Amino acid sequence: MVLEVGPEVSKFRAGDVVGVGVIVGCCRDCRPCKANVEQYCNKKIWSYNDVYTDGKPTQGGFASAMVVDQKFVVKIPAGLAPEQAAPLLCAGVTVYSPLKHFGLMTPGLRGGILGLGGVGHMGVKVAKSMGHHVTVISSSNKKRAEAMDDLGADAYLVSSDADQMAAAADSLDYIIDTVPAKHPLEPYLALLKMDGKLVLMGVIAEPLSFVSPMVMLGRKTITGSFIGSMDETEEVLQFCVDKGLTSQIEVVKMDYVNQAFERLERNDVRYRFVVDVGGSNIEDAA
Amino acid sequence: MVLEVGPEVSKFRAGDVVGVGVIVGCCRDCRPCKANVEQYCNKKIWSYNDVYTDGKPTQGGFASAMVVDQKFVVKIPAGLAPEQAAPLLCAGVTVYSPLKHFGLMTPGLRGGILGLGGVGHMGVKVAKSMGHHVTVISSSNKKRAEAMDDLGADAYLVSSDADQMAAAADSLDYIIDTVPAKHPLEPYLALLKMDGKLVLMGVIAEPLSFVSPMVMLGRKTITGSFIGSMDETEEVLQFCVDKGLTSQIEVVKMDYVNQAFERLERNDVRYRFVVDVGGSNIEDAA
Repeated sequence: MVLEVGPEVSKFRAGDVVGVGVIVGCCRDCRPCKANVEQYCNKKIWSYNDVYTDGKPTQGGFASAMVVDQKFVVKIPAGLAPEQAAPLLCAGVTVYSPLKHFGLMTPGLRGGILGLGGVGHMGVKVAKSMGHHVTVISSSNKKRAEAMDDLGADAYLVSSDADQMAAAADSLDYIIDTVPAKHPLEPYLALLKMDGKLVLMGVIAEPLSFVSPMVMLGRKTITGSFIGSMDETEEVLQFCVDKGLTSQIEVVKMDYVNQAFERLERNDVRYRFVVDVGGSNIEDAA
Repeated sequence: MVLEVGPEVSKFRAGDVVGVGVIVGCCRDCRPCKANVEQYCNKKIWSYNDVYTDGKPTQGGFASAMVVDQKFVVKIPAGLAPEQAAPLLCAGVTVYSPLKHFGLMTPGLRGGILGLGGVGHMGVKVAKSMGHHVTVISSSNKKRAEAMDDLGADAYLVSSDADQMAAAADSLDYIIDTVPAKHPLEPYLALLKMDGKLVLMGVIAEPLSFVSPMVMLGRKTITGSFIGSMDETEEVLQFCVDKGLTSQIEVVKMDYVNQAFERLERNDVRYRFVVDVGGSNIEDAA
Protein backbone atom coordinates (compact mmCIF):
# COMPACT_ATOMS: atom_id res chain seq x y z
CA MET A 1 0.00 0.00 0.00
CA VAL A 2 1.23 3.51 -0.80
CA LEU A 3 2.01 5.33 2.47
CA GLU A 4 3.21 8.64 1.09
CA VAL A 5 3.96 10.18 -2.31
CA GLY A 6 6.45 12.85 -3.35
CA PRO A 7 5.34 16.07 -5.08
CA GLU A 8 6.12 14.79 -8.60
CA VAL A 9 4.29 11.50 -8.27
CA SER A 10 1.33 11.49 -10.66
CA LYS A 11 0.39 7.84 -10.95
CA PHE A 12 -0.41 7.01 -7.31
CA ARG A 13 -1.70 8.45 -4.08
CA ALA A 14 -1.60 7.35 -0.48
CA GLY A 15 -3.80 4.33 0.17
CA ASP A 16 -3.43 2.79 -3.30
CA VAL A 17 -2.75 -0.94 -3.25
CA VAL A 18 0.39 -1.38 -5.33
CA GLY A 19 3.15 -3.82 -6.12
CA VAL A 20 6.85 -3.65 -6.92
CA GLY A 21 8.49 -6.31 -9.05
CA VAL A 22 12.03 -7.48 -9.55
CA ILE A 23 13.48 -4.16 -10.72
CA VAL A 24 13.53 -0.73 -9.05
CA GLY A 25 15.85 1.22 -11.33
CA CYS A 26 17.23 1.56 -14.86
CA CYS A 27 19.33 4.05 -16.83
CA ARG A 28 16.40 5.49 -18.88
CA ASP A 29 18.80 6.29 -21.70
CA CYS A 30 19.71 3.03 -23.45
CA ARG A 31 17.81 1.42 -26.30
CA PRO A 32 15.92 -1.04 -24.05
CA CYS A 33 14.94 1.77 -21.66
CA LYS A 34 13.76 3.96 -24.50
CA ALA A 35 11.73 1.05 -25.85
CA ASN A 36 10.12 0.56 -22.41
CA VAL A 37 11.68 -2.84 -21.92
CA GLU A 38 13.77 -1.72 -18.97
CA GLN A 39 14.32 -5.32 -17.84
CA TYR A 40 16.98 -5.49 -20.58
CA CYS A 41 18.82 -2.34 -19.40
CA ASN A 42 22.40 -3.19 -18.46
CA LYS A 43 22.23 -0.76 -15.53
CA LYS A 44 18.99 -2.02 -14.02
CA ILE A 45 18.78 -2.11 -10.23
CA TRP A 46 17.36 -5.28 -8.70
CA SER A 47 14.74 -4.98 -5.99
CA TYR A 48 16.83 -7.21 -3.75
CA ASN A 49 20.52 -7.87 -3.11
CA ASP A 50 21.50 -4.82 -5.12
CA VAL A 51 22.60 -1.28 -4.27
CA TYR A 52 20.06 1.51 -4.69
CA THR A 53 20.80 5.04 -5.95
CA ASP A 54 21.28 6.16 -2.31
CA GLY A 55 24.05 3.61 -1.81
CA LYS A 56 21.97 1.40 0.47
CA PRO A 57 21.18 -2.27 -0.13
CA THR A 58 17.83 -3.15 -1.69
CA GLN A 59 15.75 -5.54 0.42
CA GLY A 60 12.95 -6.41 -1.96
CA GLY A 61 9.98 -8.23 -0.51
CA PHE A 62 11.63 -8.55 2.91
CA ALA A 63 11.43 -4.80 3.57
CA SER A 64 8.56 -3.57 5.71
CA ALA A 65 8.58 -0.35 3.69
CA MET A 66 10.50 0.98 0.70
CA VAL A 67 11.05 4.20 -1.23
CA VAL A 68 10.70 3.55 -4.94
CA ASP A 69 10.28 5.52 -8.14
CA GLN A 70 6.72 5.43 -9.49
CA LYS A 71 7.99 3.96 -12.76
CA PHE A 72 8.62 0.67 -10.97
CA VAL A 73 5.31 0.54 -9.15
CA VAL A 74 2.15 -1.08 -10.50
CA LYS A 75 -1.36 -0.67 -9.22
CA ILE A 76 -2.96 -3.92 -8.06
CA PRO A 77 -6.29 -3.93 -9.89
CA ALA A 78 -9.56 -4.36 -8.04
CA GLY A 79 -10.48 -8.01 -7.79
CA LEU A 80 -6.92 -9.23 -7.24
CA ALA A 81 -5.76 -10.01 -3.71
CA PRO A 82 -2.28 -8.64 -2.95
CA GLU A 83 -0.94 -12.09 -2.10
CA GLN A 84 -2.27 -13.35 -5.44
CA ALA A 85 -0.62 -10.45 -7.22
CA ALA A 86 2.79 -11.14 -5.69
CA PRO A 87 3.87 -14.12 -7.85
CA LEU A 88 2.47 -12.42 -10.94
CA LEU A 89 5.05 -9.63 -10.54
CA CYS A 90 7.79 -12.17 -11.25
CA ALA A 91 6.75 -15.67 -12.43
CA GLY A 92 3.53 -14.37 -14.00
CA VAL A 93 5.06 -11.68 -16.14
CA THR A 94 8.02 -13.94 -16.92
CA VAL A 95 5.74 -16.30 -18.87
CA TYR A 96 3.34 -13.64 -20.13
CA SER A 97 6.06 -11.45 -21.66
CA PRO A 98 7.51 -13.92 -24.19
CA LEU A 99 4.09 -15.26 -25.16
CA LYS A 100 3.06 -11.70 -25.97
CA HIS A 101 6.34 -10.59 -27.53
CA PHE A 102 6.72 -13.60 -29.80
CA GLY A 103 3.14 -13.47 -31.03
CA LEU A 104 2.00 -16.50 -29.07
CA MET A 105 -1.24 -15.28 -27.54
CA THR A 106 -3.53 -16.63 -30.28
CA PRO A 107 -6.16 -19.05 -28.96
CA GLY A 108 -5.75 -22.59 -30.20
CA LEU A 109 -1.97 -22.70 -30.15
CA ARG A 110 -0.32 -25.82 -28.78
CA GLY A 111 2.22 -25.01 -26.09
CA GLY A 112 4.66 -27.04 -24.04
CA ILE A 113 5.75 -26.21 -20.52
CA LEU A 114 9.06 -27.87 -19.70
CA GLY A 115 9.55 -28.17 -15.95
CA LEU A 116 6.82 -27.68 -13.36
CA GLY A 117 8.09 -25.32 -10.68
CA GLY A 118 7.05 -21.77 -9.81
CA VAL A 119 7.42 -20.43 -13.35
CA GLY A 120 6.19 -23.64 -14.98
CA HIS A 121 2.97 -23.79 -12.94
CA MET A 122 2.27 -20.18 -13.90
CA GLY A 123 3.08 -21.07 -17.51
CA VAL A 124 0.38 -23.74 -17.54
CA LYS A 125 -2.17 -21.35 -16.06
CA VAL A 126 -1.36 -18.39 -18.30
CA ALA A 127 -1.22 -20.53 -21.45
CA LYS A 128 -4.52 -22.23 -20.58
CA SER A 129 -6.08 -18.80 -20.00
CA MET A 130 -4.97 -17.79 -23.50
CA GLY A 131 -6.92 -20.75 -24.86
CA HIS A 132 -3.91 -22.91 -25.67
CA HIS A 133 -3.65 -26.67 -25.64
CA VAL A 134 -0.98 -27.17 -22.97
CA THR A 135 1.39 -30.11 -22.63
CA VAL A 136 3.52 -30.38 -19.50
CA ILE A 137 6.86 -32.04 -20.26
CA SER A 138 8.69 -33.61 -17.35
CA SER A 139 11.44 -36.19 -16.90
CA SER A 140 9.22 -38.65 -15.00
CA ASN A 141 5.59 -39.41 -14.27
CA LYS A 142 5.91 -37.94 -10.76
CA LYS A 143 4.10 -34.70 -11.54
CA ARG A 144 1.40 -36.08 -13.83
CA ALA A 145 -1.47 -35.75 -11.35
CA GLU A 146 -0.66 -32.21 -10.32
CA ALA A 147 -0.18 -31.14 -13.94
CA MET A 148 -3.38 -32.69 -15.24
CA ASP A 149 -5.72 -32.60 -12.25
CA ASP A 150 -4.57 -29.61 -10.21
CA LEU A 151 -3.38 -27.28 -12.96
CA GLY A 152 -5.60 -28.43 -15.81
CA ALA A 153 -2.95 -29.24 -18.40
CA ASP A 154 -4.27 -31.00 -21.51
CA ALA A 155 -1.43 -33.49 -21.87
CA TYR A 156 1.60 -34.80 -20.04
CA LEU A 157 4.74 -35.96 -21.78
CA VAL A 158 7.56 -37.92 -20.14
CA SER A 159 10.79 -36.76 -21.77
CA SER A 160 12.65 -39.96 -20.88
CA ASP A 161 10.10 -42.05 -22.82
CA ALA A 162 11.42 -42.20 -26.39
CA ASP A 163 8.16 -43.54 -27.81
CA GLN A 164 6.07 -40.77 -26.26
CA MET A 165 8.53 -38.16 -27.46
CA ALA A 166 8.56 -39.57 -31.01
CA ALA A 167 4.77 -39.60 -31.11
CA ALA A 168 4.70 -35.93 -30.08
CA ALA A 169 7.25 -34.79 -32.69
CA ASP A 170 6.29 -31.75 -34.78
CA SER A 171 3.28 -30.96 -32.59
CA LEU A 172 3.99 -27.80 -30.57
CA ASP A 173 4.00 -24.11 -31.51
CA TYR A 174 6.21 -23.21 -28.58
CA ILE A 175 7.90 -24.57 -25.49
CA ILE A 176 8.47 -22.50 -22.36
CA ASP A 177 11.64 -24.11 -21.01
CA THR A 178 11.90 -23.43 -17.27
CA VAL A 179 14.59 -26.00 -16.50
CA PRO A 180 17.37 -24.23 -14.54
CA ALA A 181 20.12 -26.81 -15.21
CA LYS A 182 22.02 -28.10 -18.23
CA HIS A 183 19.80 -30.25 -20.46
CA PRO A 184 19.75 -31.31 -24.11
CA LEU A 185 17.82 -29.05 -26.48
CA GLU A 186 17.37 -31.37 -29.45
CA PRO A 187 14.60 -33.56 -27.98
CA TYR A 188 12.54 -30.41 -27.42
CA LEU A 189 13.37 -28.82 -30.76
CA ALA A 190 12.04 -32.02 -32.30
CA LEU A 191 8.68 -31.47 -30.58
CA LEU A 192 8.26 -28.10 -32.29
CA LYS A 193 6.31 -27.58 -35.48
CA MET A 194 7.77 -25.54 -38.32
CA ASP A 195 8.41 -21.99 -37.05
CA GLY A 196 8.09 -23.22 -33.47
CA LYS A 197 9.87 -21.42 -30.66
CA LEU A 198 11.86 -22.76 -27.73
CA VAL A 199 11.91 -20.02 -25.09
CA LEU A 200 14.61 -20.48 -22.44
CA MET A 201 13.92 -19.12 -18.95
CA GLY A 202 16.58 -20.85 -16.89
CA VAL A 203 19.84 -19.04 -16.23
CA ILE A 204 22.28 -21.87 -16.86
CA ALA A 205 26.04 -21.46 -16.62
CA GLU A 206 26.91 -24.62 -18.59
CA PRO A 207 26.59 -24.45 -22.37
CA LEU A 208 23.49 -25.86 -24.06
CA SER A 209 23.96 -27.40 -27.47
CA PHE A 210 22.16 -28.44 -30.64
CA VAL A 211 23.02 -29.27 -34.26
CA SER A 212 22.16 -26.62 -36.81
CA PRO A 213 19.80 -28.70 -39.02
CA MET A 214 17.48 -28.97 -35.98
CA VAL A 215 16.72 -25.26 -36.32
CA MET A 216 17.24 -24.81 -40.09
CA LEU A 217 14.88 -27.54 -41.23
CA GLY A 218 11.67 -26.06 -39.91
CA ARG A 219 13.00 -22.55 -39.33
CA LYS A 220 12.74 -23.11 -35.59
CA THR A 221 13.83 -20.58 -33.01
CA ILE A 222 15.82 -20.87 -29.83
CA THR A 223 15.37 -17.76 -27.77
CA GLY A 224 14.99 -16.60 -24.21
CA SER A 225 13.23 -14.03 -22.17
CA PHE A 226 13.82 -12.32 -18.86
CA ILE A 227 10.97 -11.21 -16.56
CA GLY A 228 8.95 -8.55 -18.40
CA SER A 229 8.49 -4.82 -18.73
CA MET A 230 6.54 -2.65 -16.31
CA ASP A 231 3.89 -2.25 -19.02
CA GLU A 232 3.60 -6.02 -19.35
CA THR A 233 3.50 -6.37 -15.56
CA GLU A 234 0.43 -4.12 -15.47
CA GLU A 235 -1.06 -6.11 -18.32
CA VAL A 236 -0.57 -9.51 -16.72
CA LEU A 237 -2.27 -8.37 -13.51
CA GLN A 238 -5.33 -7.26 -15.45
CA PHE A 239 -5.15 -10.39 -17.61
CA CYS A 240 -5.34 -12.56 -14.50
CA VAL A 241 -8.32 -10.59 -13.16
CA ASP A 242 -10.09 -10.85 -16.50
CA LYS A 243 -9.43 -14.57 -16.80
CA GLY A 244 -10.08 -15.35 -13.13
CA LEU A 245 -6.59 -16.83 -12.97
CA THR A 246 -5.22 -17.52 -9.51
CA SER A 247 -1.77 -18.74 -8.62
CA GLN A 248 -1.12 -21.53 -6.14
CA ILE A 249 0.67 -20.00 -3.19
CA GLU A 250 1.43 -20.58 0.46
CA VAL A 251 1.26 -17.39 2.52
CA VAL A 252 3.72 -17.31 5.43
CA LYS A 253 4.69 -14.79 8.09
CA MET A 254 8.17 -13.39 8.49
CA ASP A 255 8.99 -15.73 11.38
CA TYR A 256 8.62 -18.68 8.98
CA VAL A 257 11.15 -17.37 6.46
CA ASN A 258 14.03 -19.65 7.47
CA GLN A 259 11.81 -22.74 7.32
CA ALA A 260 10.49 -21.54 3.97
CA PHE A 261 14.05 -21.35 2.61
CA GLU A 262 14.78 -24.85 3.87
CA ARG A 263 11.67 -26.13 2.13
CA LEU A 264 12.58 -24.23 -1.06
CA GLU A 265 15.87 -26.11 -1.13
CA ARG A 266 13.93 -29.38 -1.06
CA ASN A 267 11.51 -28.08 -3.76
CA ASP A 268 8.83 -28.48 -1.14
CA VAL A 269 6.41 -25.73 -2.15
CA ARG A 270 3.41 -25.70 -4.50
CA TYR A 271 4.37 -23.27 -6.04
CA ARG A 272 5.39 -20.05 -4.37
CA PHE A 273 5.77 -18.80 -0.82
CA VAL A 274 4.39 -15.30 -0.32
CA VAL A 275 5.69 -13.51 2.77
CA ASP A 276 3.00 -11.43 4.45
CA VAL A 277 5.36 -8.75 5.75
CA GLY A 278 2.56 -6.35 6.75
CA GLY A 279 0.84 -9.01 8.82
CA SER A 280 4.05 -10.13 10.52
CA ASN A 281 5.38 -8.95 13.85
CA ILE A 282 8.72 -7.78 12.46
CA GLU A 283 10.22 -7.12 15.90
CA ASP A 284 9.68 -10.76 16.87
CA ALA A 285 11.20 -12.06 13.66
CA ALA A 286 14.33 -9.90 13.88
CA MET B 1 13.91 -22.23 -71.76
CA VAL B 2 10.57 -24.05 -71.92
CA LEU B 3 10.62 -26.54 -74.81
CA GLU B 4 7.16 -28.02 -74.46
CA VAL B 5 4.23 -27.83 -72.01
CA GLY B 6 1.60 -30.38 -71.03
CA PRO B 7 -2.14 -29.70 -71.44
CA GLU B 8 -2.63 -28.64 -67.80
CA VAL B 9 0.25 -26.17 -67.68
CA SER B 10 -1.12 -22.67 -67.22
CA LYS B 11 1.86 -20.65 -66.03
CA PHE B 12 4.24 -21.12 -68.97
CA ARG B 13 4.45 -21.66 -72.68
CA ALA B 14 7.14 -22.85 -75.01
CA GLY B 15 9.88 -20.28 -75.41
CA ASP B 16 9.63 -18.79 -71.92
CA VAL B 17 12.95 -18.29 -70.20
CA VAL B 18 12.59 -20.10 -66.88
CA GLY B 19 14.59 -21.49 -63.99
CA VAL B 20 14.35 -24.43 -61.64
CA GLY B 21 15.80 -24.26 -58.14
CA VAL B 22 16.87 -26.82 -55.59
CA ILE B 23 13.53 -28.60 -55.25
CA VAL B 24 11.34 -30.29 -57.87
CA GLY B 25 8.73 -32.02 -55.72
CA CYS B 26 6.87 -31.95 -52.40
CA CYS B 27 3.91 -33.77 -50.83
CA ARG B 28 1.43 -30.82 -51.16
CA ASP B 29 -0.41 -32.08 -48.12
CA CYS B 30 1.67 -31.23 -45.03
CA ARG B 31 1.54 -27.99 -43.07
CA PRO B 32 4.62 -26.48 -44.79
CA CYS B 33 3.24 -27.38 -48.24
CA LYS B 34 -0.15 -25.90 -47.43
CA ALA B 35 1.57 -22.73 -46.21
CA ASN B 36 3.52 -22.54 -49.51
CA VAL B 37 6.88 -23.07 -47.84
CA GLU B 38 7.48 -26.37 -49.58
CA GLN B 39 11.20 -26.21 -48.78
CA TYR B 40 10.25 -27.43 -45.29
CA CYS B 41 8.25 -30.42 -46.56
CA ASN B 42 9.73 -33.66 -45.26
CA LYS B 43 8.98 -35.37 -48.58
CA LYS B 44 10.54 -32.76 -50.85
CA ILE B 45 12.41 -34.02 -53.90
CA TRP B 46 15.79 -32.45 -54.55
CA SER B 47 16.61 -31.31 -58.05
CA TYR B 48 19.81 -33.32 -57.94
CA ASN B 49 21.00 -36.60 -56.44
CA ASP B 50 17.44 -37.60 -55.55
CA VAL B 51 14.85 -39.92 -57.06
CA TYR B 52 11.99 -38.37 -59.03
CA THR B 53 8.38 -39.57 -59.06
CA ASP B 54 9.18 -41.72 -62.12
CA GLY B 55 11.87 -43.59 -60.18
CA LYS B 56 14.71 -42.00 -62.15
CA PRO B 57 17.57 -39.99 -60.63
CA THR B 58 17.31 -36.20 -60.67
CA GLN B 59 20.24 -34.52 -62.40
CA GLY B 60 19.64 -30.86 -61.54
CA GLY B 61 21.69 -28.32 -63.41
CA PHE B 62 23.72 -30.98 -65.19
CA ALA B 63 20.76 -32.17 -67.25
CA SER B 64 20.47 -30.87 -70.79
CA ALA B 65 16.68 -31.05 -70.44
CA MET B 66 14.26 -31.98 -67.67
CA VAL B 67 10.56 -32.65 -67.13
CA VAL B 68 9.33 -30.71 -64.15
CA ASP B 69 6.03 -29.68 -62.57
CA GLN B 70 5.17 -26.02 -63.20
CA LYS B 71 4.99 -25.42 -59.43
CA PHE B 72 8.78 -25.69 -59.27
CA VAL B 73 9.50 -23.47 -62.25
CA VAL B 74 10.01 -19.71 -62.07
CA LYS B 75 9.97 -17.26 -64.94
CA ILE B 76 13.22 -15.36 -65.36
CA PRO B 77 12.09 -11.73 -65.51
CA ALA B 78 13.08 -9.45 -68.37
CA GLY B 79 16.33 -7.69 -67.59
CA LEU B 80 17.93 -10.64 -65.85
CA ALA B 81 20.41 -12.79 -67.78
CA PRO B 82 19.86 -16.54 -67.22
CA GLU B 83 23.41 -17.01 -65.92
CA GLN B 84 22.78 -14.18 -63.44
CA ALA B 85 19.52 -15.78 -62.35
CA ALA B 86 21.15 -19.16 -61.67
CA PRO B 87 22.80 -18.37 -58.30
CA LEU B 88 19.73 -16.45 -57.19
CA LEU B 89 17.70 -19.67 -57.34
CA CYS B 90 19.80 -21.05 -54.48
CA ALA B 91 22.20 -18.65 -52.70
CA GLY B 92 20.06 -15.62 -53.49
CA VAL B 93 16.79 -16.92 -52.13
CA THR B 94 18.65 -18.53 -49.22
CA VAL B 95 19.59 -15.10 -47.86
CA TYR B 96 16.46 -13.30 -49.07
CA SER B 97 14.04 -15.72 -47.40
CA PRO B 98 15.11 -15.27 -43.74
CA LEU B 99 15.52 -11.50 -44.11
CA LYS B 100 11.94 -11.34 -45.34
CA HIS B 101 10.48 -13.93 -42.98
CA PHE B 102 12.07 -12.50 -39.82
CA GLY B 103 11.05 -8.93 -40.62
CA LEU B 104 14.55 -7.80 -41.54
CA MET B 105 13.95 -5.92 -44.80
CA THR B 106 13.61 -2.46 -43.21
CA PRO B 107 16.15 0.04 -44.58
CA GLY B 108 18.70 1.21 -42.03
CA LEU B 109 19.13 -2.08 -40.22
CA ARG B 110 22.65 -3.12 -39.29
CA GLY B 111 23.44 -6.60 -40.50
CA GLY B 112 26.40 -8.94 -40.15
CA ILE B 113 27.46 -11.50 -42.72
CA LEU B 114 29.56 -14.21 -41.14
CA GLY B 115 31.68 -16.01 -43.72
CA LEU B 116 32.25 -14.79 -47.27
CA GLY B 117 31.58 -17.65 -49.68
CA GLY B 118 28.82 -18.12 -52.23
CA VAL B 119 25.98 -17.46 -49.80
CA GLY B 120 27.90 -14.80 -47.87
CA HIS B 121 28.73 -12.76 -50.96
CA MET B 122 25.07 -12.83 -51.93
CA GLY B 123 24.18 -11.87 -48.37
CA VAL B 124 26.28 -8.71 -48.63
CA LYS B 125 24.69 -7.78 -51.94
CA VAL B 126 21.09 -8.49 -50.92
CA ALA B 127 21.45 -6.75 -47.54
CA LYS B 128 23.09 -3.71 -49.16
CA SER B 129 20.26 -3.60 -51.71
CA MET B 130 17.78 -3.49 -48.80
CA GLY B 131 19.54 -0.39 -47.53
CA HIS B 132 21.30 -2.06 -44.60
CA HIS B 133 24.63 -1.18 -43.04
CA VAL B 134 26.56 -4.39 -43.66
CA THR B 135 29.48 -5.73 -41.65
CA VAL B 136 31.40 -8.71 -42.99
CA ILE B 137 32.76 -10.84 -40.15
CA SER B 138 35.68 -13.10 -40.93
CA SER B 139 38.37 -14.90 -38.98
CA SER B 140 41.24 -12.99 -40.60
CA ASN B 141 41.96 -9.88 -42.62
CA LYS B 142 42.37 -11.97 -45.79
CA LYS B 143 39.03 -11.06 -47.31
CA ARG B 144 38.91 -7.41 -46.26
CA ALA B 145 39.57 -5.95 -49.71
CA GLU B 146 37.03 -8.11 -51.51
CA ALA B 147 34.41 -7.45 -48.83
CA MET B 148 34.87 -3.70 -48.76
CA ASP B 149 36.03 -2.84 -52.27
CA ASP B 150 34.50 -5.52 -54.50
CA LEU B 151 31.23 -6.17 -52.65
CA GLY B 152 30.69 -2.78 -51.05
CA ALA B 153 30.40 -3.86 -47.40
CA ASP B 154 30.33 -0.96 -44.92
CA ALA B 155 32.56 -2.55 -42.29
CA TYR B 156 34.83 -5.53 -41.77
CA LEU B 157 35.28 -7.25 -38.45
CA VAL B 158 38.00 -9.76 -37.62
CA SER B 159 36.49 -12.28 -35.23
CA SER B 160 39.87 -13.29 -33.80
CA ASP B 161 40.55 -9.71 -32.70
CA ALA B 162 39.06 -9.42 -29.19
CA ASP B 163 39.28 -5.62 -29.12
CA GLN B 164 37.43 -5.23 -32.43
CA MET B 165 34.78 -7.69 -31.29
CA ALA B 166 34.31 -5.92 -27.93
CA ALA B 167 33.98 -2.57 -29.67
CA ALA B 168 31.27 -4.00 -31.94
CA ALA B 169 29.23 -5.55 -29.10
CA ASP B 170 25.49 -4.82 -29.09
CA SER B 171 25.60 -3.26 -32.57
CA LEU B 172 23.88 -5.60 -35.05
CA ASP B 173 20.21 -6.33 -35.73
CA TYR B 174 21.01 -9.66 -37.32
CA ILE B 175 23.81 -11.93 -38.42
CA ILE B 176 23.56 -14.26 -41.39
CA ASP B 177 25.87 -17.07 -40.32
CA THR B 178 27.09 -18.94 -43.39
CA VAL B 179 29.95 -20.83 -41.71
CA PRO B 180 29.58 -24.52 -42.60
CA ALA B 181 31.74 -25.91 -39.76
CA LYS B 182 31.58 -26.01 -35.96
CA HIS B 183 32.19 -22.58 -34.42
CA PRO B 184 31.37 -20.81 -31.18
CA LEU B 185 28.09 -18.87 -31.11
CA GLU B 186 28.63 -16.64 -28.09
CA PRO B 187 31.02 -14.15 -29.74
CA TYR B 188 28.39 -13.50 -32.40
CA LEU B 189 25.43 -13.40 -29.98
CA ALA B 190 27.38 -10.68 -28.16
CA LEU B 191 27.46 -8.59 -31.35
CA LEU B 192 23.66 -8.56 -31.53
CA LYS B 193 21.51 -5.79 -30.14
CA MET B 194 18.49 -6.56 -27.99
CA ASP B 195 16.05 -8.68 -30.05
CA GLY B 196 18.83 -9.40 -32.54
CA LYS B 197 18.75 -12.57 -34.62
CA LEU B 198 21.49 -15.06 -35.44
CA VAL B 199 20.37 -16.94 -38.57
CA LEU B 200 22.26 -20.18 -39.17
CA MET B 201 22.69 -21.33 -42.76
CA GLY B 202 25.43 -23.92 -42.44
CA VAL B 203 24.44 -27.58 -42.11
CA ILE B 204 26.82 -28.62 -39.33
CA ALA B 205 26.87 -32.11 -37.86
CA GLU B 206 28.77 -31.17 -34.69
CA PRO B 207 26.77 -29.47 -31.92
CA LEU B 208 26.93 -25.69 -31.54
CA SER B 209 26.69 -24.33 -28.02
CA PHE B 210 25.92 -21.22 -25.99
CA VAL B 211 24.97 -20.33 -22.41
CA SER B 212 21.35 -19.38 -21.85
CA PRO B 213 21.90 -15.85 -20.45
CA MET B 214 23.42 -14.93 -23.84
CA VAL B 215 19.95 -15.22 -25.37
CA MET B 216 17.79 -14.37 -22.35
CA LEU B 217 19.42 -11.05 -21.51
CA GLY B 218 18.50 -9.21 -24.66
CA ARG B 219 15.82 -11.62 -25.85
CA LYS B 220 18.09 -12.68 -28.69
CA THR B 221 17.21 -15.38 -31.18
CA ILE B 222 19.16 -18.26 -32.63
CA THR B 223 17.40 -19.59 -35.65
CA GLY B 224 18.06 -20.99 -39.08
CA SER B 225 16.65 -21.00 -42.53
CA PHE B 226 16.77 -23.31 -45.51
CA ILE B 227 16.68 -22.06 -49.13
CA GLY B 228 13.30 -20.37 -49.67
CA SER B 229 9.86 -20.94 -51.09
CA MET B 230 8.96 -20.82 -54.76
CA ASP B 231 7.09 -17.57 -54.07
CA GLU B 232 10.21 -16.08 -52.50
CA THR B 233 12.29 -17.36 -55.39
CA GLU B 234 10.12 -15.39 -57.81
CA GLU B 235 10.38 -12.38 -55.53
CA VAL B 236 14.16 -12.43 -55.22
CA LEU B 237 14.56 -12.54 -59.01
CA GLN B 238 12.40 -9.43 -59.38
CA PHE B 239 14.12 -7.82 -56.37
CA CYS B 240 17.50 -8.23 -58.09
CA VAL B 241 16.18 -6.75 -61.33
CA ASP B 242 14.65 -3.80 -59.45
CA LYS B 243 17.82 -3.18 -57.46
CA GLY B 244 20.20 -3.81 -60.34
CA LEU B 245 21.86 -6.47 -58.23
CA THR B 246 24.23 -8.81 -60.05
CA SER B 247 26.00 -11.80 -58.60
CA GLN B 248 29.68 -12.51 -59.18
CA ILE B 249 29.91 -15.64 -61.22
CA GLU B 250 32.22 -17.57 -63.50
CA VAL B 251 30.42 -19.17 -66.43
CA VAL B 252 31.93 -22.45 -67.59
CA LYS B 253 31.10 -25.08 -70.17
CA MET B 254 30.34 -28.69 -69.37
CA ASP B 255 33.83 -29.85 -70.34
CA TYR B 256 35.23 -27.72 -67.51
CA VAL B 257 33.10 -29.34 -64.78
CA ASN B 258 35.80 -31.55 -63.31
CA GLN B 259 38.25 -28.66 -63.08
CA ALA B 260 35.50 -26.57 -61.53
CA PHE B 261 34.98 -29.18 -58.83
CA GLU B 262 38.70 -29.27 -58.11
CA ARG B 263 38.75 -25.50 -57.77
CA LEU B 264 35.64 -25.61 -55.53
CA GLU B 265 37.50 -27.90 -53.17
CA ARG B 266 40.25 -25.26 -52.93
CA ASN B 267 37.62 -22.49 -52.44
CA ASP B 268 38.97 -21.05 -55.65
CA VAL B 269 35.90 -19.37 -57.10
CA ARG B 270 34.48 -15.85 -56.69
CA TYR B 271 31.72 -16.83 -55.92
CA ARG B 272 29.79 -19.31 -57.98
CA PHE B 273 30.43 -21.38 -61.09
CA VAL B 274 27.50 -21.41 -63.51
CA VAL B 275 27.51 -24.27 -66.01
CA ASP B 276 26.26 -23.21 -69.42
CA VAL B 277 24.73 -26.56 -70.33
CA GLY B 278 22.88 -25.24 -73.38
CA GLY B 279 26.07 -23.74 -74.80
CA SER B 280 28.12 -26.87 -74.18
CA ASN B 281 28.79 -29.66 -76.60
CA ILE B 282 27.38 -32.39 -74.39
CA GLU B 283 28.60 -35.24 -76.63
CA ASP B 284 32.19 -34.07 -76.24
CA ALA B 285 31.91 -33.76 -72.49
CA ALA B 286 30.33 -37.18 -71.91
